Amino acid sequence: PEKAVILAAGLGTRLGKLTEETPKGLLKVAGREILYRTMKVLQELGVREFIIITNPKYETKFRKFAEKNGFNARIIINEHPEKGNGYSLYLAKDWVDGRFILVMSDHIYERAFLVKAAEGEGPIVDEAPRYISIDEATKVKIKDNRVEDIGKHLKEFDAIDTGFFVLTPEIFEVADEILSEKGKAELSEIVKKAKLKVTFVSGFFWMDIDTPQDIKKARKLIVQTSVKGSGDGFISRHLNRKISTRISTLLVDYVTPNQMTVVTFLLGILSALVNFISVPLAGITYQISSILDGVDGEIARASMKTSRFGGYVDSILDRYVDFAFLLTLAYVTIKEPLWWAIAVTAIFGSAMVSYSTERYKAAYGSDIYSDIPTMRYLIGKRDERIFLTMLFCLAGQIKALFALLAILANLRIAATVWLVWKLKNNAHKCNYHDI
Amino acid sequence: PEKAVILAAGLGTRLGKLTEETPKGLLKVAGREILYRTMKVLQELGVREFIIITNPKYETKFRKFAEKNGFNARIIINEHPEKGNGYSLYLAKDWVDGRFILVMSDHIYERAFLVKAAEGEGPIVDEAPRYISIDEATKVKIKDNRVEDIGKHLKEFDAIDTGFFVLTPEIFEVADEILSEKGKAELSEIVKKAKLKVTFVSGFFWMDIDTPQDIKKARKLIVQTSVKGSGDGFISRHLNRKISTRISTLLVDYVTPNQMTVVTFLLGILSALVNFISVPLAGITYQISSILDGVDGEIARASMKTSRFGGYVDSILDRYVDFAFLLTLAYVTIKEPLWWAIAVTAIFGSAMVSYSTERYKAAYGSDIYSDIPTMRYLIGKRDERIFLTMLFCLAGQIKALFALLAILANLRIAATVWLVWKLKNNAHKCNYHDI
Ligand SMILES: [Mg+2]
Ligand SMILES: [Mg+2]
Repeated sequence: PEKAVILAAGLGTRLGKLTEETPKGLLKVAGREILYRTMKVLQELGVREFIIITNPKYETKFRKFAEKNGFNARIIINEHPEKGNGYSLYLAKDWVDGRFILVMSDHIYERAFLVKAAEGEGPIVDEAPRYISIDEATKVKIKDNRVEDIGKHLKEFDAIDTGFFVLTPEIFEVADEILSEKGKAELSEIVKKAKLKVTFVSGFFWMDIDTPQDIKKARKLIVQTSVKGSGDGFISRHLNRKISTRISTLLVDYVTPNQMTVVTFLLGILSALVNFISVPLAGITYQISSILDGVDGEIARASMKTSRFGGYVDSILDRYVDFAFLLTLAYVTIKEPLWWAIAVTAIFGSAMVSYSTERYKAAYGSDIYSDIPTMRYLIGKRDERIFLTMLFCLAGQIKALFALLAILANLRIAATVWLVWKLKNNAHKCNYHDI
Repeated sequence: PEKAVILAAGLGTRLGKLTEETPKGLLKVAGREILYRTMKVLQELGVREFIIITNPKYETKFRKFAEKNGFNARIIINEHPEKGNGYSLYLAKDWVDGRFILVMSDHIYERAFLVKAAEGEGPIVDEAPRYISIDEATKVKIKDNRVEDIGKHLKEFDAIDTGFFVLTPEIFEVADEILSEKGKAELSEIVKKAKLKVTFVSGFFWMDIDTPQDIKKARKLIVQTSVKGSGDGFISRHLNRKISTRISTLLVDYVTPNQMTVVTFLLGILSALVNFISVPLAGITYQISSILDGVDGEIARASMKTSRFGGYVDSILDRYVDFAFLLTLAYVTIKEPLWWAIAVTAIFGSAMVSYSTERYKAAYGSDIYSDIPTMRYLIGKRDERIFLTMLFCLAGQIKALFALLAILANLRIAATVWLVWKLKNNAHKCNYHDI
């Protein structure tokens, strides 16, 4: 659909102070307005114009919001909120033609939900919603794939209304009938009367925001679904991410990804300098910087502020942190040339582990972890190396550490090349040239 | 066009022994049969079937060639070569419908030529051919954009026939007329009589192969147009490539790219070991390995045997060679920890230079040298670093070398990040998000 109608006339009284000045749809959850999340994705999916129905109080706010973010939005004022949200929808009548999306301004949807839903027809319903309380939800009874009944208090029901609809202009005729009859109309009445066909979309994160607790819950869930993970090792999966997502949830509303990248880098360099004072303390600091290293990416994805440049710089800074730590560690503990050589091999190998996976992406244009799932179980990823480093620093076994890292990193690279060779050699058999 | 007719009935007597057993089109030039070069590209451009007209002697050869390379080819036998190459074309009559390509089996074309030519109409002619001798060429006189006259001995002419045509089945009627009248027909007679519209394509490498000297010339030109160059530094452009292309021209028929990668790697590791015997000699060996480093890629591209895996492994092996050389060099000359630290910075920086450009490609999906032309003039590329290394090894200034490399490499990385930031920041101003 090329147009999307957004119902944003409600006053959101249950959010108290938060919505005194700001409409619900413009509340920030994990660093972005609820509506930014929906509209940005819909825009990417081909929606050209948004029709926002709101009450007079919020007109300017919505206008500024649309302008700031480059959304092509028409703001329609509902002067009679008492006529129900069905009347709000009716006000969009003159501004849509053909199939259009109708979406509530206080619902948060993950990207994959919106992609599926926008291809649907009628009310998008979820058979098994995972993140909302059924008590508060609008239930839908379905017969022959059409809405039979809809409402908050249904005893028997088949699915939950997600607040997302794909409609055609015929809906306005139904709305008109109800309005002329009763002088007011709820969306649920219209949907029921129209006996709309429904579309099932399940298994994705979506929820509506009614209370301050909902905002907290959504923030947490958004951060958790923002873990990229494809390059995570054992320590990341079982330790670092558990802590970093908590930190990200706390910080996502206050800190930008770039600020976090800088802080993490500085902490990493600091951990290297701590080697001159205390090696065990340095090891712990280095491990803490490794935990924080996940936060910039999590915040960036959760607040839809990812940038390729951010990822580019972050990965280069990571290499320098590893280099600085291992170099200072070697400098304060090793005096013999042979062990220096082993230390250099460890330092070089640490950089090369990343190089071998990045070079794959540059050569093949796809992620090595998606193409070769075995790669996930190959030990020697950064989180694992740093954790080992901390352990050996605490134990004072620095030479053993360098020997281990030198072997681990370079074996991992050999294994990576071998796995790539195996994959590409198999592909070769089917397809003579992979130019 | 979905079909291509290939005229391959000639005996190629001027090539002497070379064509005693093998038809001209199946002679290897720079590691690939002349026809492989043409057919592989045409296949990629959408040609589904090749109709090869040849004489009985070569039937089996062409059949085996097509099978081995996965070309869908129909072999048609011309039992009467004495009736001229117009008769050969006529034999394709029942096997084509709609627009088709006609191409000579003894012409070599660079890829870009074929892309343009396949979109043309009539004889493809070149106003200013750069690689053939005009004396021997078939000239075309053009009037109102159509062939007025065509032949080897025209006094006045406007362009040269490239041996490539895009025709329609009407041409067979013209051929039929000439054949019934004279009992034989040359292609040039048919083209002249049909007053075909011509298409100009100029500025690309193409030539026909008539003599052993032509093969040598073509081999050399193919290798020269196979230099990738985008990551070449000053030393590569002005020294290494001049030598490596000569070596590639000599070796392209005998050596595979992978063999060359292995040899170059072993020479690089050898140069590192030579440090234990003589540092100046090691420096020279290292520089020789840097020259040879271009050969595998040149041979791969010239002989159409490029593979992503080859490029992937080659770049990882290069890092290990640099590491091994700098490590052994440091090991044999430096005993003090501070200088070790500087040496490690140089070693690490050398790997990171490549990392910072490869990581760009992984992040942005495009080549940093195309996106940021300034990058070409940033010093510190591998060829330059290796050349400097040789000079300092010869002068015995090893500590100065490490200090210089440590600064050069890491400054280059900083400059790279800064240039990427500048580029992406400018793009940002137009396009809010570059996710
Ligand atoms: Mg980082
Ligand atoms: Mg190489």
